[in-house]
Amino acid sequence: METDHGTIETPIFMPVGTQASVKTQSPADLEKLNARIILGNTYHLYLRPGADLIAEFGGLHRFMNWSRPILTDSGGYQVFSLRELRKIDRQGVTFKSHLDGSRHLFTPLSVLETQQKIGSDIMMVLDECPPHDAEEPYVATSNEVTVKWALQAREAYARSKPLHGYEQWLFAIVQGGTFPAIREKSARALVDMDFPGYAIGGLAVGETKDKMFGMTDLCTDILPSEKPRYLMGVGMPQDLLEGIARGVDMFDCVMPTRNARNGTVFTTEGRLVIKAARYAKDPRPMDEHCTCHACTHFSRAYIRHLLNVGEVLGIWLTTHHNLHYYLTLMENARQHIAAGTFEAWKTETIKKFNNQYTL
Amino acid sequence: METDHGTIETPIFMPVGTQASVKTQSPADLEKLNARIILGNTYHLYLRPGADLIAEFGGLHRFMNWSRPILTDSGGYQVFSLRELRKIDRQGVTFKSHLDGSRHLFTPLSVLETQQKIGSDIMMVLDECPPHDAEEPYVATSNEVTVKWALQAREAYARSKPLHGYEQWLFAIVQGGTFPAIREKSARALVDMDFPGYAIGGLAVGETKDKMFGMTDLCTDILPSEKPRYLMGVGMPQDLLEGIARGVDMFDCVMPTRNARNGTVFTTEGRLVIKAARYAKDPRPMDEHCTCHACTHFSRAYIRHLLNVGEVLGIWLTTHHNLHYYLTLMENARQHIAAGTFEAWKTETIKKFNNQYTL
Repeated sequence: METDHGTIETPIFMPVGTQASVKTQSPADLEKLNARIILGNTYHLYLRPGADLIAEFGGLHRFMNWSRPILTDSGGYQVFSLRELRKIDRQGVTFKSHLDGSRHLFTPLSVLETQQKIGSDIMMVLDECPPHDAEEPYVATSNEVTVKWALQAREAYARSKPLHGYEQWLFAIVQGGTFPAIREKSARALVDMDFPGYAIGGLAVGETKDKMFGMTDLCTDILPSEKPRYLMGVGMPQDLLEGIARGVDMFDCVMPTRNARNGTVFTTEGRLVIKAARYAKDPRPMDEHCTCHACTHFSRAYIRHLLNVGEVLGIWLTTHHNLHYYLTLMENARQHIAAGTFEAWKTETIKKFNNQYTL
Repeated sequence: METDHGTIETPIFMPVGTQASVKTQSPADLEKLNARIILGNTYHLYLRPGADLIAEFGGLHRFMNWSRPILTDSGGYQVFSLRELRKIDRQGVTFKSHLDGSRHLFTPLSVLETQQKIGSDIMMVLDECPPHDAEEPYVATSNEVTVKWALQAREAYARSKPLHGYEQWLFAIVQGGTFPAIREKSARALVDMDFPGYAIGGLAVGETKDKMFGMTDLCTDILPSEKPRYLMGVGMPQDLLEGIARGVDMFDCVMPTRNARNGTVFTTEGRLVIKAARYAKDPRPMDEHCTCHACTHFSRAYIRHLLNVGEVLGIWLTTHHNLHYYLTLMENARQHIAAGTFEAWKTETIKKFNNQYTL
């Protein structure tokens, strides 16, 4: 993918930088990890520091001093997660801020405008993500609204001009829950609108893995393979490989950063709960095969100590490592795709994951 | 000062790394700041992760991967701060852990042994630091105990061998509150014991600045000028310069790191409360004359945002900057001493500080 902030080789994992910061990591740290693109959350940025302020600084890249590409979500997913605080109708979604209870309205046009102010390279349309246990009639109606909103956003986008002097793409989001007919209808309607890229949304919300990958398969069969395809909010390392096998190009997930803060790290030998007492005197690095700054400089014992006494450096180290793990996994995937050895490597790697996680 | 972990040019400021970490900063960050020596707190390290564990790793340098010198306090100051939890007698001090209420005893010999296990380059003797409003008879008796403890530690130290294969120095601490006769007695008794360095303790605990510097003057007149002299827990930038003028070589204080976490940063234009609303849209760096990573990469508006939303990167940035400020102030002091221009520079710099702080 060629953006005005640089080229992104796919498949790619996007570290999540909710509030204009990938938690604990500086932009220089992310460059050392060779992160090529990060994700920002429109809902959070809209509330604090506000899209207008970011626009005054020339966009999020300059505000946070990150020169590589940024994708923002539409804010819809966060708003729908508020449950008690929001009300959806055909115009958009009204919600109360989780911070101060103030009322706000997100519409397909307003979230487009907000993201234009934020200045992300890739913007997402407003969609509704129905709960995983929603019944078919609800999902069908919801999807009609999502498709209508996508068209409104697409048309408004076509009329708009770049605000910050560089191109911002708008991606659509396929919904439809786990109902194949609705998914297909959603995907075909959005493809007809000719977006530069497509996301598969509404998955990894509680459905089985079989259903998740079934729906992914269905979507990637319809979505054009020459355009980027993005599986939102997924997920575990093996899920990324399964997604890639089905033609997915882009992933994001809070798992590496959130798990790091809880003291769970991904290693080539499996997951490691670093706070466990058995690592109190362990002089080995978190992952003996890892080349990240944390693993080449610090022991499990030291990192465990830092987390146990609440020292922030501990979270920096586990976060840095987990992001290194995810980004390296994607790099390996790209190399195996280029070498034509992806399928064999994927099967072997997932088998290893499965063995590790049943330990 | 020549230690087995490197040479330290004085005067020097020691960043405080209470729990085997200078809060938020990695050893690599501290090297970028050109910190030459850091301080660890024996009380905290004794409780977590424990001196034996640190010894198993070959000492604190290896445990935390910091190759430059380390000074540890004796733990006494923290224990005496516990108030309700401790009991002092001539043997030492019994206290309850602030973590789990477990009972412990610190004696002059036990804190020496603990610091030998920790492996600091400079160890401190156990002393009692009386409250600043203690009356003369109490301070006199307390000082007798402190001097007795120093002798016990000095003798035990003379009998001991290096545990980790490198030299560890033992410094004594002058006490005596703000009573000149007791201070003098304390200093002379300790000088007679021939320690490789001396600290001035029990100041900056609530007395006036006049008294603090009066006592400092008195001590540095007695303590040999060819040995390092360390003014413990002091303090504000102007206090450091006043201390240097009186012959002090070493300082430590939590002020730069603690203020950073509260959002107060030191700049060449005065102190700046970065969370203030007036910086919400301020595109300038925290300090326009500063060359640190924070000031060369990020705006006040961005750092204010990070602190306001609780992003850890914000604290990393303010901490990094404040340490850079303190370490640069010391570097400037060393250059002016070498050039013979210290007095004039000090007078001018303190005048500027005083103008700033009355703004």
